[in-house]
Amino acid sequence: MTTALTRLEHDLLGDYEVAHEAYYGVHTARAVANFAITGTPISSHPELVVALACVKLAAARANRRLGLLNAEHCDAIVAACEEIRAGELHDHFVVDVIQGGAGTSTNMNANEVVANRGLELLGHQRGDYRHLHPLEHVNLGQSTNDVYPTAVKIGLQFAVHRLRVAMAALVTAFADKAVEFGGHLKMGRTQLQDAVPMTLGQEFGSYAVMVGEDADRLGEAVTLISEINLGGTAIGTGLNAPRGYAEAVCEELCAVTDLSLVTASNLVEATQDVGAFVQLSGVLKRTAVKLSKICNDLRLLSSGPRAGFGEINLPAVQAGSSIMPGKVNPVIPEVVNQVAFEVVGNDIAISMAAEGGQLQLNAFEPIIAHSLFESLAHLTAACDTLRTRCVVGITANVAHMRAAVEHSIGLVTALNPHIGYEAATRLAADALNSNSDIASLVLDRGLLTPSELESILRPDNLTGCVHAFGDS
Amino acid sequence: MTTALTRLEHDLLGDYEVAHEAYYGVHTARAVANFAITGTPISSHPELVVALACVKLAAARANRRLGLLNAEHCDAIVAACEEIRAGELHDHFVVDVIQGGAGTSTNMNANEVVANRGLELLGHQRGDYRHLHPLEHVNLGQSTNDVYPTAVKIGLQFAVHRLRVAMAALVTAFADKAVEFGGHLKMGRTQLQDAVPMTLGQEFGSYAVMVGEDADRLGEAVTLISEINLGGTAIGTGLNAPRGYAEAVCEELCAVTDLSLVTASNLVEATQDVGAFVQLSGVLKRTAVKLSKICNDLRLLSSGPRAGFGEINLPAVQAGSSIMPGKVNPVIPEVVNQVAFEVVGNDIAISMAAEGGQLQLNAFEPIIAHSLFESLAHLTAACDTLRTRCVVGITANVAHMRAAVEHSIGLVTALNPHIGYEAATRLAADALNSNSDIASLVLDRGLLTPSELESILRPDNLTGCVHAFGDS
Amino acid sequence: MTTALTRLEHDLLGDYEVAHEAYYGVHTARAVANFAITGTPISSHPELVVALACVKLAAARANRRLGLLNAEHCDAIVAACEEIRAGELHDHFVVDVIQGGAGTSTNMNANEVVANRGLELLGHQRGDYRHLHPLEHVNLGQSTNDVYPTAVKIGLQFAVHRLRVAMAALVTAFADKAVEFGGHLKMGRTQLQDAVPMTLGQEFGSYAVMVGEDADRLGEAVTLISEINLGGTAIGTGLNAPRGYAEAVCEELCAVTDLSLVTASNLVEATQDVGAFVQLSGVLKRTAVKLSKICNDLRLLSSGPRAGFGEINLPAVQAGSSIMPGKVNPVIPEVVNQVAFEVVGNDIAISMAAEGGQLQLNAFEPIIAHSLFESLAHLTAACDTLRTRCVVGITANVAHMRAAVEHSIGLVTALNPHIGYEAATRLAADALNSNSDIASLVLDRGLLTPSELESILRPDNLTGCVHAFGDS
Amino acid sequence: MTTALTRLEHDLLGDYEVAHEAYYGVHTARAVANFAITGTPISSHPELVVALACVKLAAARANRRLGLLNAEHCDAIVAACEEIRAGELHDHFVVDVIQGGAGTSTNMNANEVVANRGLELLGHQRGDYRHLHPLEHVNLGQSTNDVYPTAVKIGLQFAVHRLRVAMAALVTAFADKAVEFGGHLKMGRTQLQDAVPMTLGQEFGSYAVMVGEDADRLGEAVTLISEINLGGTAIGTGLNAPRGYAEAVCEELCAVTDLSLVTASNLVEATQDVGAFVQLSGVLKRTAVKLSKICNDLRLLSSGPRAGFGEINLPAVQAGSSIMPGKVNPVIPEVVNQVAFEVVGNDIAISMAAEGGQLQLNAFEPIIAHSLFESLAHLTAACDTLRTRCVVGITANVAHMRAAVEHSIGLVTALNPHIGYEAATRLAADALNSNSDIASLVLDRGLLTPSELESILRPDNLTGCVHAFGDS
Repeated sequence: MTTALTRLEHDLLGDYEVAHEAYYGVHTARAVANFAITGTPISSHPELVVALACVKLAAARANRRLGLLNAEHCDAIVAACEEIRAGELHDHFVVDVIQGGAGTSTNMNANEVVANRGLELLGHQRGDYRHLHPLEHVNLGQSTNDVYPTAVKIGLQFAVHRLRVAMAALVTAFADKAVEFGGHLKMGRTQLQDAVPMTLGQEFGSYAVMVGEDADRLGEAVTLISEINLGGTAIGTGLNAPRGYAEAVCEELCAVTDLSLVTASNLVEATQDVGAFVQLSGVLKRTAVKLSKICNDLRLLSSGPRAGFGEINLPAVQAGSSIMPGKVNPVIPEVVNQVAFEVVGNDIAISMAAEGGQLQLNAFEPIIAHSLFESLAHLTAACDTLRTRCVVGITANVAHMRAAVEHSIGLVTALNPHIGYEAATRLAADALNSNSDIASLVLDRGLLTPSELESILRPDNLTGCVHAFGDS
Repeated sequence: MTTALTRLEHDLLGDYEVAHEAYYGVHTARAVANFAITGTPISSHPELVVALACVKLAAARANRRLGLLNAEHCDAIVAACEEIRAGELHDHFVVDVIQGGAGTSTNMNANEVVANRGLELLGHQRGDYRHLHPLEHVNLGQSTNDVYPTAVKIGLQFAVHRLRVAMAALVTAFADKAVEFGGHLKMGRTQLQDAVPMTLGQEFGSYAVMVGEDADRLGEAVTLISEINLGGTAIGTGLNAPRGYAEAVCEELCAVTDLSLVTASNLVEATQDVGAFVQLSGVLKRTAVKLSKICNDLRLLSSGPRAGFGEINLPAVQAGSSIMPGKVNPVIPEVVNQVAFEVVGNDIAISMAAEGGQLQLNAFEPIIAHSLFESLAHLTAACDTLRTRCVVGITANVAHMRAAVEHSIGLVTALNPHIGYEAATRLAADALNSNSDIASLVLDRGLLTPSELESILRPDNLTGCVHAFGDS
Repeated sequence: MTTALTRLEHDLLGDYEVAHEAYYGVHTARAVANFAITGTPISSHPELVVALACVKLAAARANRRLGLLNAEHCDAIVAACEEIRAGELHDHFVVDVIQGGAGTSTNMNANEVVANRGLELLGHQRGDYRHLHPLEHVNLGQSTNDVYPTAVKIGLQFAVHRLRVAMAALVTAFADKAVEFGGHLKMGRTQLQDAVPMTLGQEFGSYAVMVGEDADRLGEAVTLISEINLGGTAIGTGLNAPRGYAEAVCEELCAVTDLSLVTASNLVEATQDVGAFVQLSGVLKRTAVKLSKICNDLRLLSSGPRAGFGEINLPAVQAGSSIMPGKVNPVIPEVVNQVAFEVVGNDIAISMAAEGGQLQLNAFEPIIAHSLFESLAHLTAACDTLRTRCVVGITANVAHMRAAVEHSIGLVTALNPHIGYEAATRLAADALNSNSDIASLVLDRGLLTPSELESILRPDNLTGCVHAFGDS
Repeated sequence: MTTALTRLEHDLLGDYEVAHEAYYGVHTARAVANFAITGTPISSHPELVVALACVKLAAARANRRLGLLNAEHCDAIVAACEEIRAGELHDHFVVDVIQGGAGTSTNMNANEVVANRGLELLGHQRGDYRHLHPLEHVNLGQSTNDVYPTAVKIGLQFAVHRLRVAMAALVTAFADKAVEFGGHLKMGRTQLQDAVPMTLGQEFGSYAVMVGEDADRLGEAVTLISEINLGGTAIGTGLNAPRGYAEAVCEELCAVTDLSLVTASNLVEATQDVGAFVQLSGVLKRTAVKLSKICNDLRLLSSGPRAGFGEINLPAVQAGSSIMPGKVNPVIPEVVNQVAFEVVGNDIAISMAAEGGQLQLNAFEPIIAHSLFESLAHLTAACDTLRTRCVVGITANVAHMRAAVEHSIGLVTALNPHIGYEAATRLAADALNSNSDIASLVLDRGLLTPSELESILRPDNLTGCVHAFGDS
């Protein structure tokens, strides 16, 4: 029995009451009841919702072109999809991000929201599917098995784009610091042991290059998720999809998304293959791992303030301790580290889900999609946070760094070509044991003249940065 | 400048406007701004919020016993904590689940909510910390570095308890099915190849034992998270914690939580060691992996309905396809599989976070805590969902299973002791090549008499289930 | 004191006896003693040993071009390296595959073997480094920190090439089966439930495409490991490397390896960045995961022989059981599955090692290199094994597959466009409940004429394979 | 045709030539050909080979007690097994560590070596199985599916024991250093920022406790692998195992191994369940992660020698660089880190293999076993290496550490109870900005008297180590 607050819908399992105000219908409602797992709805991944609307819109237009959908139905579907793309109906995308059924519930949710909003626009009641049917009209010529992975790929392209924008801004922030710190001499370290001199600018310049390269790799990975399987329907054989449909829907989808999508050449393979997701996740893992490495470095270089490396200062963004007054901690790099760990974990979940696919379909695409969208969103937030709350405010302790170079054993490496590896080895040992400087020992022993030594130890000679030091 | 809607607070970084209605204060507000990562507040882990309140309450009582806190302050703190325990202030626990600072922001959030609610109860304005201070009173004798891991451990015990309840119910459901299916003969399979006969009851009985053993292992793992480090303060040396405080606060905490907690014997070690979390996660991974195995089996045994194993039927809980009419899919096991993959991924995030700890503290405890609470909550939901929406409704295709046994090659194994391994091997090959039954061949060739054969192939003989088959 | 069986060498730690017949020297000998971890020497990765020889050879030629090395020294080094490339000295590459020191011991091992063999060729005693020095001549202008990652990348290119050859052969084997099985109708399955018909040829054709795409992705990944950092020396600043050296050595290395290598534009970044390895591992993981998926399918499709899917037969390669006569198991796919699990595990080890790099170098490159070489070698063996001992011998149970299609509920999907989703849903339910065939019900109820039905259910219509079925 | 160098054996696939001198037979030989994957034979895990001999020996004695095996056969089997236990026949355990078939090939290898050596002892030719048959006598009453997991568990107990011995020695080494360093004051650090003082003894004492706790957890985990399934035969139903066999063989196995083994109460469950292996791996992962954390700390504390923390010195064990004279690197901790990463990777391989088990058996036990034995062996080597080549030789830079404490800001925390958190915060900021010491500022401002200050800053007060400092 329906009440004023509900409407009655039915499916193959029987009747089911749906909340009156819901744009979704029976299939969505059952899915919500079935998958009470995380409490997080798919609307938490807005790029996916928008991408679903793009697919439904493109399918309607393709069906219209092929004469399979009348103008009224097509227009209603398109109008509803445009509202979704504008973010107006996201609250009705309610199925759990972790769901069984290979994405069927997500596709059903989209079909029902589009149909019911379309019905309203046509002047009908929600649920009166005689006038616009979620499956026979909105899902026409489609299957979850081609709609869902296609929508996921499009949504991922949106999300990758956002991440790359955040990474590009981070590259700029590191590059600006590289210029600012270009003339600051410091000890380079390998295996945490003093090695040879470099500039702090070179160090930050490396981070700029590192993040930039990862952004480039992500850009390349986009081609992996540009191959779609719309038109393959249930298992890629195209059963029930009319001739010309695959081509038409791909054209329409390129137009509506402004992306360069192509239809896979073998749709049976494309329907079951989630390799592109695994590889994209691998590239995200690369990005995460290196962001974490950079943050480890920032924390190490700013260790102290007195009993640590003390080369740089991170901006204070909050009090560091509930018990230690004045303590300020590297909380921003720390949160980025943790996002990185999460992304590596997500990569494993994705790999296992991919490995678990069977025969003509991978039933576990929802956790793959969820994990990828989560990794992308968190990495984007992490890059923005790292840039705005940390990198741009970093300052250098110039004198401290220079003193460390002058007092270092590592300078001896520069003498190698002049006095040989074995003599240099002895010199290093003597300096360490006698707590002396390399330069003093060299001069004391008359190994080099003062002017020879000065020439060898010029900062530009030591660091390879000819232009960094001006007249120094 | 404060407005009617805000109040002004300050910390070592300066003044900061806090929303007037907020129970949290400046430290929390800064943390919210700093960690805009996931959008998920710590209140999404209600067990953690309650546990924080337990710690603050116990600390106040311990401080009172030691004469460090006056009765008014103590009572106000206790009263505020009781409200939190009752779930009334969860909305004010707003810092992000992924945060830098080793949990400092979470601890600060708790300190401030308790202080401000306490101030109200004492008749003062929120923010008027002269009368009750978040750090000097609520956090007295404490450090994030002992409060936070302690609260996490207590919250985890609550969450593990909930999971074990769900697992126990699942054990019962499987055990009930084991009884119901006790007399149904079927082929056992190893490496997906027909092996020797068993009963469907034995198969479901195995699942009951399997889940039950995991629940037992989880119960044992609770002892891992019963060792707390309250009283260690910043790094475990107990600086600023008065003599007797560690003992007192542990007693009070046992009383308020009704848990058996003990103070670690080496607090310096306990403050930096997150091994217990790693091991707990390993046990959760075990649980997840085996739930996934069971769900793989359920999906396999119910494959079909016609071109699969077809031994059991899972209850239909939603339509399976947007294109294939009448298709019903094993969506419930599938969602459990995906939760399992997530738990394995979380375990990696936890392991990396644990490995990344440095010197006297692990700065990455927040992602460890978040991942564990998430794994526990999702596994609990998965067990409940699997039980209520799948296991209890499973039915068996008895005739189909029995026919498969009678027609199987695997029966030949039972003849091994009577005709030898090599003769049995030839018999198996002949049966397979001639599409014959083992029994027919044996009788045709006069290898055994009909009564000998019947005796050997009695179900109870084959399956070791003497009582399962009644008079069969 | 040296004996007839040893010679005395020394380093900064003092004197050390080295086995007389060893081509390696003191640094290698100490490393062997220090790293008694796995018992597996680096010679187990022959591509790495050959690549080291290529680097040493190219460096000698570059130094000669720049006038830093005399002709005698250069010729001796080149000659020794050619012997290594020919595999004649692999037994002298003895340091453990897991070693501390960022590859220093591997580089030292190479320097010493080249020097001592060079000494012999020059008519001197092994160990008489006055005439050819491991560091001052063989390692001239180099650092472990540029030699080692460069050699690893070159060795990986060799190993990737071998894997791609094995994958290409596997593609051909699957493609041949796709042709052989092109006309065999069978049920396609999604989520292990009967879906819609396809051909076995389509199924095997998917595997051919799947493996082929992965091979293409691996080919693309080679560009990731074509960027080298020779000339950067210790930390990428190029200290002690003469002007022109980086260009010269890259040219020589391209010539000797016949690979297209380029020098990184930022050597400081390149020296510390192991992102390329992480990403390559991600692509290997993709390959592994999909090989595992294919093997899962092969095991599932061959399940039985009687109580399973029984669609295909894998060739018997060994007896399957020590107790069950006649049992034959899918042991070849099983071993491939396990290699895949190992590769996923290796990917995690690589990710953690990459994340753990600090400042100007990643000290953990040896485990990265070892894991990658291991994954590549095992995947190559797995592909070869899968092809030769399984795929080429697979046969199909044609009649069994066709009967399953004819008796399936899934045929109803093809009626969708003709009778509508809802009517088709009722038809499916009736067929399932009454154990009837779809075709019989349709005709009994007069929903379609026999000729309409026959047309809809033509194999080529069902599977989209117009050409597969000839006149059927 | 057999030659002088081979003998002809046969199995269900036909005839096969086996090397004349081999103790293994046709099943092993086929497996060697089938699984040319890693090149590493199972004899690389000697504990497994010994355990297999224990199982075969116990089974023979149990069969003899039950009257199923005559004395001659039993004695021959027992004698052959004793030789294997003594390590005399390990070279004949040649099947690959990664193999399909759920361990069947390993079991067959054991059956054949025992049979052929037994035949020799009985005065027969190898291969003349009429007198002693690998399956009908050596494998009597057994199945791979109960033999193999049982042998793996026993072998793992041997290997865990070895690891625990190595860990106990490492605990002692750390504890000795804790005593040696007990009076050395240093700054404690949280989040890499100076926190409050402690002693170096406390730091090393933590490592002793940490490793000790992990060893205890490993000891507990042994109970997980004490439950065996001998007597379950193929799928746990005990088909073909006589009444009383399970009890008898367990008794014999306890006697021969001197371990406390119990027969699982549900053998069907026990045969398919690999949860104990997953959990054991989780405990190994815990151990690995914490060893890695300790090694990270050692590397950090010894960073320098001049531009780092410089608190401790690791013993030099080899030259650190091929280009930087005098550089000594923390190569021993680094190799331990890498073993830890490998163990975490192995844990993932194990988890995936466990998840992939199907129905009555897990076909992937070989990779589980191999990964566990590898993790155990490498961790054992890592602990021994860390102890002997690093920990025992560590020295402290006492004056440097003490100066850092005296100059630290962190001392202000001790003033908290005396001047309040907010005043202490201001003091800390002033000290940092003016590059002053806390003590000087306090006295300058008259906040405390010199004697009050001295009392507060007494080392024993600061660190909680009453006894550490004697009269200091």
